[in-house]
Amino acid sequence: MHLADLPTPSLILDRRKLAANLATMNARVQRHPGVGFRPHLKTAKSADVARLAVAGHAGGITVSTLAEAEYFADHGFRDLLYAVAIVPAKLPRIAALMRRTGVAILLLVDSVEAARAVAEAGEALSTGFAALIEIDTGEHRAGVAPDSPALVEIGRALHHQPFASLRGVMTHAGHSYGCRSIEAIADVAEAERAGTVRAAERLRAAGLPAPVVSVGSTPTALHARRLDGVTEIRAGVYMFGDMFQSAIGSCAVDDLAVSVLASVTGHNRETGHLLIDAGGLALSKDRSTADTPPPHDVGYGLVVREDGTRFPGGDLVVTRAYQEHGVVRPAEAAGSPPIPFGELPIGARVRVLPNHVCMTAAMYDRYHVIDGGTCIVAEWTRTNGW
Amino acid sequence: MHLADLPTPSLILDRRKLAANLATMNARVQRHPGVGFRPHLKTAKSADVARLAVAGHAGGITVSTLAEAEYFADHGFRDLLYAVAIVPAKLPRIAALMRRTGVAILLLVDSVEAARAVAEAGEALSTGFAALIEIDTGEHRAGVAPDSPALVEIGRALHHQPFASLRGVMTHAGHSYGCRSIEAIADVAEAERAGTVRAAERLRAAGLPAPVVSVGSTPTALHARRLDGVTEIRAGVYMFGDMFQSAIGSCAVDDLAVSVLASVTGHNRETGHLLIDAGGLALSKDRSTADTPPPHDVGYGLVVREDGTRFPGGDLVVTRAYQEHGVVRPAEAAGSPPIPFGELPIGARVRVLPNHVCMTAAMYDRYHVIDGGTCIVAEWTRTNGW
Repeated sequence: MHLADLPTPSLILDRRKLAANLATMNARVQRHPGVGFRPHLKTAKSADVARLAVAGHAGGITVSTLAEAEYFADHGFRDLLYAVAIVPAKLPRIAALMRRTGVAILLLVDSVEAARAVAEAGEALSTGFAALIEIDTGEHRAGVAPDSPALVEIGRALHHQPFASLRGVMTHAGHSYGCRSIEAIADVAEAERAGTVRAAERLRAAGLPAPVVSVGSTPTALHARRLDGVTEIRAGVYMFGDMFQSAIGSCAVDDLAVSVLASVTGHNRETGHLLIDAGGLALSKDRSTADTPPPHDVGYGLVVREDGTRFPGGDLVVTRAYQEHGVVRPAEAAGSPPIPFGELPIGARVRVLPNHVCMTAAMYDRYHVIDGGTCIVAEWTRTNGW
Repeated sequence: MHLADLPTPSLILDRRKLAANLATMNARVQRHPGVGFRPHLKTAKSADVARLAVAGHAGGITVSTLAEAEYFADHGFRDLLYAVAIVPAKLPRIAALMRRTGVAILLLVDSVEAARAVAEAGEALSTGFAALIEIDTGEHRAGVAPDSPALVEIGRALHHQPFASLRGVMTHAGHSYGCRSIEAIADVAEAERAGTVRAAERLRAAGLPAPVVSVGSTPTALHARRLDGVTEIRAGVYMFGDMFQSAIGSCAVDDLAVSVLASVTGHNRETGHLLIDAGGLALSKDRSTADTPPPHDVGYGLVVREDGTRFPGGDLVVTRAYQEHGVVRPAEAAGSPPIPFGELPIGARVRVLPNHVCMTAAMYDRYHVIDGGTCIVAEWTRTNGW
C-alpha cells in the first residue's frame, strides 16, 4: 500500500518524524534531572503513539476526555491524569473505569465546591479519588492563583477524607502560545514553575501534602531554563507539531509528522485557484489566529506535494475552507508564480500540513502511517468524542 | 431519560423545531409548482432526519461524501446526488456501491478532463455513470460559467458514451451567505436561476440533454422569487438552522433545532468568566466570520439554559474555545450584567447554540432527541468521515 492507494481525505502520520520529535522532547526533559515526563495524549489520542511517547519515562500519561481515559485504560495504561476540571456527574463513570481496569486516575479541581463534591462522591461510590489542584500561573483560563486563600481551603476539603486525597498541584501555561521568541517562552516557563512551586509550598506550610508539582505546555517544556521544585512536565502537540507551533519556534515545518492527504478536484483558472477535497471538516476551521496571529499566515494549512516536499515555485496554502472544498492559492498574493496547474491535474494528490493538529486529527478515526517516503507501513487507531 | 442524565458534551436535536423548519421549507418550495426538492444531508448526516426531510417529495437526496452515500444507500435511499466534483480514484468505490445496493448516484463534473475520466472509468468498470455539470453562477468556487465554451465540450464528453450519460446542470449559490438582506438574497437566487437555466439551454441548443436543472442554498431556496426553468432545489442547513443563518435572516434564534449540552466546569470570578466542558472540539472552531462577519458576533456560540431559554439578564456567549474548555462571558462587554454565577454552580448544565451547525454536528456520532422540553425521546445515528 502506498499513499496513492488511500481514499482522500486521509490522515497521514510519518513515524520517522514522530520519533525525531519524541527524541527532541526527551533530550529537553533530560536537562532537568529528577523531573518526570507525563505526555499529553489529547493530540494523538492513539495507543500506538502513546507507547512510543512513554518509552524511557515512568508510563504515566495525561488525557483530556473520559473517552481517552477509557481507551487508554483498555490499552494497558495504568496511570492517568485527567487534566480538565472535574464535574460531579462524571465521577460515577470514572469510578466504574477504575474498578473495571484498576487504572489510577488523577483528577483536577480548582474550587472548594468541586473538591467537596469529589470527597462526597467518593464516599457515595466507595471509591478513593485522588486530585490535583489547578493553579493559574498566568493563562487566566482556569485554576486558582498561587497566593489565593482558596488554595489551602481546597486542599483541606480533599485531605484526610475517607474517600479523597490531595496529591498536589498542576498548571497549564497555555499563554506561552502568545509568545513570539524563545526568551519570552522561557520567561513564561519560569513564571509557570515559580507559581506552581509556590502553591505547593503554601499547601505544605499548611500541613497538606503536595508530592506532585506538574507543569506543562509544549513551548515551555521545550524552553524552560530550570525546573527546581517541579516533579513532572506535560506536553502533547510536540509529538506531531503543526504550522502554528512552527511559527512560534517549537519546531520546524520539516518536523511536522501529521498531514492530510487530499485530491485535486478542480481548477479555476479564471480566479487562479485549485480546489481540493479537504475542506473545513478535513482540516478543521482552526486558524490559530484568533488572538495571536502567527508571523506567517498559511490560512487553513500549507499544501505540499504527495511526497511531503514543498512546491519549488513558491508555497501554496488553503485560503478558504468550505465543508468539503478547500481553495488553494499561492501563499503570497503579489509577485508569486501562479498555481502549477500542469503538475496538479484533476485527481492529483497533495498533502496539507495543518495549522492546529489537535483539531485536524480529531476529524479522523485512524492514522495511515508512513516511515518517511510514501509507503503505508501501519494503521493506528485513534479515539474521538467524549 | 432527561437531559440531566446525559454525559457532556452531547449533541441535542429538538425534533419539534426540526419539524417546524422542514414545514417552513416545504411551504417555500410549494410556491414553485413543478419544482422538486432534493434535501442536502451534509448537515444532518442522519437517516432519521432524512426520512422526515424527504416526506412529501420524490425521495431524492444530496450528499457531500462517499461515507454519506454508503450510509444512506444502506438505509434505503435510492436516488443520490453526490454534490462534490468527482475525481477518478473515487469511481470504483461508487461503482461497487451502485452494484451492491442498486442505488442511483448522480455525479458532478466541471471539466472536460473529469468528464472523460468518468466515461473511461465507466467502461473499465462496466458501470453506467450519470453526471451533472457544475455551473458557476457567481460563487466563483467551482463550476464553469454559463457561457463558457467548456460547457458544451464537457457535455459532449459525457453524452452518448457507452457507460456515461449527461443529465443536466447544477449550481450552488454559496455567495448568498454574504448577503445581508432578503432582497439581496432574492437577487442572488435570480442570478443562480438565470445562469443555470442559461447553461441548460446552451446544452440543449447543442443537441445535448439537460433534463435536470438543480439549484440551491438555504438562503436562496427560502427567498427565490421565481424558479422558471429549474427542476429541483437543494438545501441542507435549513433543517437545523444556526446562529449564522439566523444572522442573515434564514431563521430566528428560536428556530435552532440543534445545540450542544455542556456542564459548567469552573468559575473565574476575577476575570468574570465561566468555563464549560464544550470547547473547540465540541463546538468547532468555525466563527462563520472569516470573510463576512454577521451583524451580531456570538463568538463560538450562544449559551442558553438547559431548557433552551435565554438568560434573562442578558445573553451569554462562548468567547474562546480551547480544545476542551469553552470560556463563557456576557455577549456585550460593556454595561451588561455580570455572569449569573449563582444560577450556574459547578456541574450546572447549559446548552450552546452553534455558529455553524454543519461543523459542530460533525464532531458527534449521534443525536440525543428531545421533543421540546428536556425529555430524551430517541437517539438517532449520524455518519461522519469520508
